[in-house]
Amino acid sequence: MILFRVLFLVFVTVALAATTVEPVVAQNILDSRLDTPIGTPENPLDVGIGIRIDQITSVDQKAENYGAVVVLRVEWTDPALAFDRQELGRDIRVFNPPALADHAAEIGTVVPAFVIHNQQSNKWIHESAASLRYDGRVLYVEKSSLTLQAPHFDFRKYPFDTQEFHFEVVSIFPSQYVSYHPINEFSGLGDLLGEEEWILDNARLETSQVTGLSGQDSDQVALIFEGHRHLTYYVIRVFLPMLVLISVGWALFFLDEYRKRIEIAGGNLLVFVAFNWAISADLPKLGYLTFLDFVLQCMFLMTGALIVFNVALRRLKVSGRESGARKLDNYAVKWIYPLGYAAIVGYAVFAYLLVP
Amino acid sequence: MILFRVLFLVFVTVALAATTVEPVVAQNILDSRLDTPIGTPENPLDVGIGIRIDQITSVDQKAENYGAVVVLRVEWTDPALAFDRQELGRDIRVFNPPALADHAAEIGTVVPAFVIHNQQSNKWIHESAASLRYDGRVLYVEKSSLTLQAPHFDFRKYPFDTQEFHFEVVSIFPSQYVSYHPINEFSGLGDLLGEEEWILDNARLETSQVTGLSGQDSDQVALIFEGHRHLTYYVIRVFLPMLVLISVGWALFFLDEYRKRIEIAGGNLLVFVAFNWAISADLPKLGYLTFLDFVLQCMFLMTGALIVFNVALRRLKVSGRESGARKLDNYAVKWIYPLGYAAIVGYAVFAYLLVP
Amino acid sequence: MILFRVLFLVFVTVALAATTVEPVVAQNILDSRLDTPIGTPENPLDVGIGIRIDQITSVDQKAENYGAVVVLRVEWTDPALAFDRQELGRDIRVFNPPALADHAAEIGTVVPAFVIHNQQSNKWIHESAASLRYDGRVLYVEKSSLTLQAPHFDFRKYPFDTQEFHFEVVSIFPSQYVSYHPINEFSGLGDLLGEEEWILDNARLETSQVTGLSGQDSDQVALIFEGHRHLTYYVIRVFLPMLVLISVGWALFFLDEYRKRIEIAGGNLLVFVAFNWAISADLPKLGYLTFLDFVLQCMFLMTGALIVFNVALRRLKVSGRESGARKLDNYAVKWIYPLGYAAIVGYAVFAYLLVP
Amino acid sequence: MILFRVLFLVFVTVALAATTVEPVVAQNILDSRLDTPIGTPENPLDVGIGIRIDQITSVDQKAENYGAVVVLRVEWTDPALAFDRQELGRDIRVFNPPALADHAAEIGTVVPAFVIHNQQSNKWIHESAASLRYDGRVLYVEKSSLTLQAPHFDFRKYPFDTQEFHFEVVSIFPSQYVSYHPINEFSGLGDLLGEEEWILDNARLETSQVTGLSGQDSDQVALIFEGHRHLTYYVIRVFLPMLVLISVGWALFFLDEYRKRIEIAGGNLLVFVAFNWAISADLPKLGYLTFLDFVLQCMFLMTGALIVFNVALRRLKVSGRESGARKLDNYAVKWIYPLGYAAIVGYAVFAYLLVP
Amino acid sequence: MILFRVLFLVFVTVALAATTVEPVVAQNILDSRLDTPIGTPENPLDVGIGIRIDQITSVDQKAENYGAVVVLRVEWTDPALAFDRQELGRDIRVFNPPALADHAAEIGTVVPAFVIHNQQSNKWIHESAASLRYDGRVLYVEKSSLTLQAPHFDFRKYPFDTQEFHFEVVSIFPSQYVSYHPINEFSGLGDLLGEEEWILDNARLETSQVTGLSGQDSDQVALIFEGHRHLTYYVIRVFLPMLVLISVGWALFFLDEYRKRIEIAGGNLLVFVAFNWAISADLPKLGYLTFLDFVLQCMFLMTGALIVFNVALRRLKVSGRESGARKLDNYAVKWIYPLGYAAIVGYAVFAYLLVP
Repeated sequence: MILFRVLFLVFVTVALAATTVEPVVAQNILDSRLDTPIGTPENPLDVGIGIRIDQITSVDQKAENYGAVVVLRVEWTDPALAFDRQELGRDIRVFNPPALADHAAEIGTVVPAFVIHNQQSNKWIHESAASLRYDGRVLYVEKSSLTLQAPHFDFRKYPFDTQEFHFEVVSIFPSQYVSYHPINEFSGLGDLLGEEEWILDNARLETSQVTGLSGQDSDQVALIFEGHRHLTYYVIRVFLPMLVLISVGWALFFLDEYRKRIEIAGGNLLVFVAFNWAISADLPKLGYLTFLDFVLQCMFLMTGALIVFNVALRRLKVSGRESGARKLDNYAVKWIYPLGYAAIVGYAVFAYLLVP
Repeated sequence: MILFRVLFLVFVTVALAATTVEPVVAQNILDSRLDTPIGTPENPLDVGIGIRIDQITSVDQKAENYGAVVVLRVEWTDPALAFDRQELGRDIRVFNPPALADHAAEIGTVVPAFVIHNQQSNKWIHESAASLRYDGRVLYVEKSSLTLQAPHFDFRKYPFDTQEFHFEVVSIFPSQYVSYHPINEFSGLGDLLGEEEWILDNARLETSQVTGLSGQDSDQVALIFEGHRHLTYYVIRVFLPMLVLISVGWALFFLDEYRKRIEIAGGNLLVFVAFNWAISADLPKLGYLTFLDFVLQCMFLMTGALIVFNVALRRLKVSGRESGARKLDNYAVKWIYPLGYAAIVGYAVFAYLLVP
Repeated sequence: MILFRVLFLVFVTVALAATTVEPVVAQNILDSRLDTPIGTPENPLDVGIGIRIDQITSVDQKAENYGAVVVLRVEWTDPALAFDRQELGRDIRVFNPPALADHAAEIGTVVPAFVIHNQQSNKWIHESAASLRYDGRVLYVEKSSLTLQAPHFDFRKYPFDTQEFHFEVVSIFPSQYVSYHPINEFSGLGDLLGEEEWILDNARLETSQVTGLSGQDSDQVALIFEGHRHLTYYVIRVFLPMLVLISVGWALFFLDEYRKRIEIAGGNLLVFVAFNWAISADLPKLGYLTFLDFVLQCMFLMTGALIVFNVALRRLKVSGRESGARKLDNYAVKWIYPLGYAAIVGYAVFAYLLVP
Repeated sequence: MILFRVLFLVFVTVALAATTVEPVVAQNILDSRLDTPIGTPENPLDVGIGIRIDQITSVDQKAENYGAVVVLRVEWTDPALAFDRQELGRDIRVFNPPALADHAAEIGTVVPAFVIHNQQSNKWIHESAASLRYDGRVLYVEKSSLTLQAPHFDFRKYPFDTQEFHFEVVSIFPSQYVSYHPINEFSGLGDLLGEEEWILDNARLETSQVTGLSGQDSDQVALIFEGHRHLTYYVIRVFLPMLVLISVGWALFFLDEYRKRIEIAGGNLLVFVAFNWAISADLPKLGYLTFLDFVLQCMFLMTGALIVFNVALRRLKVSGRESGARKLDNYAVKWIYPLGYAAIVGYAVFAYLLVP
Repeated sequence: MILFRVLFLVFVTVALAATTVEPVVAQNILDSRLDTPIGTPENPLDVGIGIRIDQITSVDQKAENYGAVVVLRVEWTDPALAFDRQELGRDIRVFNPPALADHAAEIGTVVPAFVIHNQQSNKWIHESAASLRYDGRVLYVEKSSLTLQAPHFDFRKYPFDTQEFHFEVVSIFPSQYVSYHPINEFSGLGDLLGEEEWILDNARLETSQVTGLSGQDSDQVALIFEGHRHLTYYVIRVFLPMLVLISVGWALFFLDEYRKRIEIAGGNLLVFVAFNWAISADLPKLGYLTFLDFVLQCMFLMTGALIVFNVALRRLKVSGRESGARKLDNYAVKWIYPLGYAAIVGYAVFAYLLVP
């Protein structure tokens, strides 16, 4: 890794630095250069941050994190780094990033270090490069893969939930020394994220101030995007099987024997337990019920109650009150079973999905 | 990784060092500087340690460890490192950490090295930085992710257990050379730990002396915090299904045939075995029974006994003593089944949860 | 790793550079050397890229990526790097890659850095080497293992699908500075890929322009190959068991009791749910139905309908209209059951496999 | 990692070197210094090795390895490394380990390199440090985590087995150049290993000679310890469920119908297959039977024989010889079933556990 | 890792180089030194390669690779590296491997770099060392762990298959520059491989020429060894359970009811599907049938046919032709069932195991 990168990354296209810094601004910086050094409260360094996510390698909702391949772009202008292009014969110097840092250290100026606030794993840098224009304009680009915390997951509407994902770049220097602004044209989500389960969109950059490593307020630029799920999976693996099993169970109740019904409902009970465990394998151990949990638990309880109801009916029949049992039964079969299940779903939709 | 860090970490905000060291203390140090070098038994180096856990990336109770993203803060004042700010023209020198170590080595003073006592994996450093104030005040900050041993797990009250988690920073130098004090204002747990299963709180710093790498007593500052579980998961995945299955089993006993009961109880027996294995998959292979194990094992044994009891009843009936069988049966069904299960739970609550 | 590589990789066979650069071209370059430096819009650097995949270590269709061991070959001629072979006494200088980069940096010329566009993991370099011929001809070879995104997966025809895999090498310099051409004779797939599930073939190099790290159009050379699956696995694990279970189910319908049929069909219903989940474990959570999903879901629904149909028949019989029930039954058993299943498969083949 | 370590590890407490080297020995070494260099067959270097295991991070009996966090301590005295403490003004020089190696290389003396013979994974060093006393006494300490082969596993008595774990430190230099002796006071197992399944004890250091990397006899110091299992897990997950299922099966045989028995025994057959697979998931694919395997296989075969026996009885009854069947049956139920199972367990205990 | 290795690996026992180079050969080399440099077509460098596998950490037949801890030994004599032992006062110089490479680069000679052809993962070097004798004899030793491709797996005879494993060391230099010869006395398999499932033996070194990284013919030395499986695992987990289930199924057919038989055979059908999936979990998704697949599939089909046959018999009986049914039945039960299964196994043994 290291050998290779030292070989090939040392040189970055001169075009990397061919960004448009307005002459006027550059002029201002050059003027101010005589007064106070940049990166101080009197003359804070203004840094542009671009965050483009090229790939989503995974979304692990149990661990509440996601993997990404990201291109970070950091731009700033530091007159202290300016050089005489006549003397060098070139407009641009291309640096191996550590070499630029060494150069800056020598001349006593700052490099706007950052940390990714919600980084969770090691960050594997695929490639990084830095270029410096004669007027002190620096462009640093880095492509890397890492895992990021996604602590904003809220599964209450699962699987109809919408989740928010963050990618937070925080300055190591406090805000009074280094300020951040977003570079929107080099930010956002790529075209081929390679994620099948989630529909990811609504990407935006947000700037804010957070407590940084130094313990003081530091600038943060965050790429925030949202995801909701393709529902086909849940329809064909969960909802359709459950609907068919419940419908068939209902049909079987039209065969009159209580004994048989009890067996069928007992089988359903075990199926619900199996579904319950299968779904929980996809989620963290939550402190609340999801929409799907609520529906499953209510149906489970209702199926248990149906068995007890049928046992009672059978005892009525055995004790000679078969007509009363049959009347109760017709009522229950024709109305309670379907309406009960529908009511559970209806209430769950109202309480979980419609209420914000 | 390396390239990037050498580039951007070399420079740390001057604010990193803008901590409040009381002038008087600084004065003392400057005075003592003439006498004996710091970091010796005559003049031990006093080091402040701050530990802030930003993320809990995982809690693996089977392996008894947890993953964390942590910000470590190390502060000390070493007059030998002081410099003339007039000459340098700046109050603060910012160092790439290895460069500070090299500098200290050259002038023959110590850097207070530490080791994380319960570290289990490699430590991936996201970012680190060091700054030095003109009076010798050093601030080292490091953000990293790692896995830590959590050997204090005790599952006896599982899933109602409270566990203790440690993060132990131990000095490599013995206590007589380097002493530690906690920095409480930069320590504790972050706001977005990203952990769903555990409620983590009660974080506190504790200072103590342990046997260090050198084989001698060394100072330790530990961040200790506690966790207990959200119970919703256990209620809807374990307790509710068990309660429903047992209740339904009880209802079915009111249908009089012994044969059927035996089948139902036999099915329950297998369900208990399945629960038993499912729960054991979440825990290490313990040398003792947890609350949940105890309840499940007792219910399992009682269900086995119920089957034998029903076989006996049926043999009574077959051998013509049906009325005796029926009497015994009523007694067992109406009292022993529910009261037996309740007694098991009651005893378990008393013996496991209430007794400290 | 590092030590070893620094030891053994420093030296690369002189033969590495013994490639055929046409004398005329070399002459042109030498001429142009006097005018403008290479690697500029006036005189872009032409680079040859060879991509040979030696091993496919894994194909993870759930994560939509694949692992590969790849040999990359980069060739270019830069007159600025030429040296006097008389003076050195050798035609070839062999470089440790970072040393070549340092050398190029010193004399102020560029090294054509690249990035692998769909790289997903860290890249572990097994070995890398660079050689330089007296006329400025450079050959860089690198063997490495990495994981690559395969976002073009389309499972609609699963398991009869054909997928496309890419390996994309993108220049870090914009196209106007560095242009790429493929080296076909050193590219393609190896003979012992070590992949059992997929039949991989149709490898080809494609050149295009994409937006590079710099944000400008950059040249890309991609190795593209295709894979389709050995079907034996799916035949013996899925299609044959399903065919046998359905056939046996059909045979059992010739035993006349409706009650027994309902049990059998109910069992099949659960088997379909199990198959459904087992197959979903092999695929990502898709937003569409695959061929296999479609077939399974339709059969599942039809089996559910069969149960309801049998319940209706039994009610007919119970209510005294047995002959009508029997007539309906013969019709259904003899025609609807087998033809229905055949129609499902036929429609699925038409809609999923034949329609492009 | 690297940055941090270079920063903080450069300096190790002077106390690290404050070990008691007897003055006489030191004197001898100083004397012999004038004759022959140390680390030669005439004057082999004597090195002390201490191995303390702080944590057991995992025991993977399937892969036959274990993970450990270990503190290694290496001590030796090399007069060639001695320095004039008056001149330096200090008794101790603290080295960053690579710096010590460089220093030794410069003055042409050896550093006693070692390799961990049964190391299996990479070794992640948490911290390492070296100190040198004025008389040439060196102390090297290293804390690291790694995975170690445990090839001595023998599962014949599983789960009542006792296993041996090794940690083997081998000299890279042959015995005639460098000899090892154990440092018992800094060796052994820590207090909080964090391992729940195994009871680990009986740790001891053993010195021996093995064939080293050089192909010649080299000294080895090994920490050897033993582990046996907490049995609670196996009692409540395996033995108790099996005992209850077998007892219930026996009770059910007192209900006279052969048909029912066959069903019950058939169910048990499948339960044994399930147990068989569940237990095999915990073990490697062995070339021999464990105690538990033997018991399960015999019970499985016996249950199969019971079914055949019941089929025969039923055919006897059907063919009119019911009384003979009944007699055989009583004999089998009352004696063969319980005694057969007991005999299996008894023989297994004798053949597997008692015979050494 | 790095720090440690730089510290302790710099020095390798002088004995490492104490290998027997015949004086005559050395003489020749010294003579030829005056003519042409070594490592050229006129005077190719002859390199000895030793490969000893100390541990097999895993055999992953699904991914078709294996993990190993290996000791590589590389020996060669390059007169250009010779030195004057009088001047140095020593016969042997011990090098940190990168330092040797640097030294060789300075004096303009080659170091025989190699690559492991079937390496799949990163290679973690536990330890490496190099020594140089006064006459130019170099010995390089390296102990490392890595994962290697094993693409020669052929599962047709599974689980009675014999597989071939390779460890291939290929020269980076073409054969005309560097030639390889095997060092048999330092090669082979260790005594404690730590692999339980496979019996590994028949290790041998083979020399050949393959296309190297340079695209030209390069020398390869490969350690090749073979493995076959302990069969106990397959007997007690697969063959014995299947034999018992089939035997019991056969016994049950002697109870005359067709209805019951259909249920039993239906249960067996599901057991075969479960076995089918369980076995497929251990193998990659192959494009052909293994011995075990063939046996299971045939038995599955035959069991399906048996059910259909019993349905036909029952219809015969229902339609009044019971005696014909009974005759057919006796024939089938007594002959077809056992002989059919035996024939399947016999044919499979002949077609899969005996035919080469």
